[in-house]
Amino acid sequence: MTVTAQHLNGVDTATLFATIDAVRQQPEAAQFQFRTTSEWVSGTHSRGRFAGFFGAGQEHVHAVDTVIDADHPAVLVGTDQGPTPAELLLNALAACLMAGLGNIASARGVELHGVRCQVEGDIDLRGILGLDSGVRNGFEDIRVTFEVDGDAEAEKLESLVRQSQARSAVFDVLTHGTNVTVQVAQASN
Amino acid sequence: MTVTAQHLNGVDTATLFATIDAVRQQPEAAQFQFRTTSEWVSGTHSRGRFAGFFGAGQEHVHAVDTVIDADHPAVLVGTDQGPTPAELLLNALAACLMAGLGNIASARGVELHGVRCQVEGDIDLRGILGLDSGVRNGFEDIRVTFEVDGDAEAEKLESLVRQSQARSAVFDVLTHGTNVTVQVAQASN
Repeated sequence: MTVTAQHLNGVDTATLFATIDAVRQQPEAAQFQFRTTSEWVSGTHSRGRFAGFFGAGQEHVHAVDTVIDADHPAVLVGTDQGPTPAELLLNALAACLMAGLGNIASARGVELHGVRCQVEGDIDLRGILGLDSGVRNGFEDIRVTFEVDGDAEAEKLESLVRQSQARSAVFDVLTHGTNVTVQVAQASN
Repeated sequence: MTVTAQHLNGVDTATLFATIDAVRQQPEAAQFQFRTTSEWVSGTHSRGRFAGFFGAGQEHVHAVDTVIDADHPAVLVGTDQGPTPAELLLNALAACLMAGLGNIASARGVELHGVRCQVEGDIDLRGILGLDSGVRNGFEDIRVTFEVDGDAEAEKLESLVRQSQARSAVFDVLTHGTNVTVQVAQASN
């Protein structure tokens, strides 16, 4: 595989820098709206889809049609037709840190050979089961462990992870929280 | 389809209540650890997997092998091989509220005919692009809209959504935040 400076790690860095410059000139291009829909299948089993999103002043449709089934496992009286929502949350964090790492490594001229990360989250289900009002519903603690193999010293490889963490949308929401509004519309039938 | 009281909406409510009772007697059974792994593919494209989890005193392996590709879209200089991590975060929230709703409707004897929810999240990408230190990295605002079609009055159907929100692990983490630690291990090569 021939690696040009412009496409190191599969990232078109020239276009990446040009895009950042364009947003600097036109801040309204930075306003994005991401979306998902979920349909109930049965019990705790649901199916999520991702039609498109708004950004850089227009609507976009995804190139790949992704469907994600989620469920509770048998031990929680589900049918285990997919990961639990809690695992999907951990996966969103991993994917966000990984995407940032790919961009940052490329911007800094570090060739990556392979990157893996593991995420684990501790949760006391007495919260969601309503058994102890002193126990929160969500994860008490989430730990992410990266292994980065690339053409740079360990310290520099670690700095890629740190910068990704510092610029991660999902890490920010998981550590600081955000505003979430839940409303119920009248069913259309 | 014959619907028995015990399996309303596909939920084995007798076993659900027995499970909650068992955890009440043995609180240590409520300690769960959920996990995911992510592997970098190229650029901002990564692949997530869900091998198993710990809970109710033992390790469990998922019945279904789920693989989730994530990527940035072309407008953000990615290859759009899957949803963005930000969309995966919204999907985890939708799946969690949906699973809770399935259980709660069944526990309250409400037969569901169909449930859909849409989630949208607003984000100003000047945060993650490092263009404005006053702009956060994550979503400023997330809105969830449910449509619930079931054998109950609108007010009762809405109360199912409210109770699901009150007992949702993902809603809790997204609104209150949690502890997240990111560490870098030496690559094993």
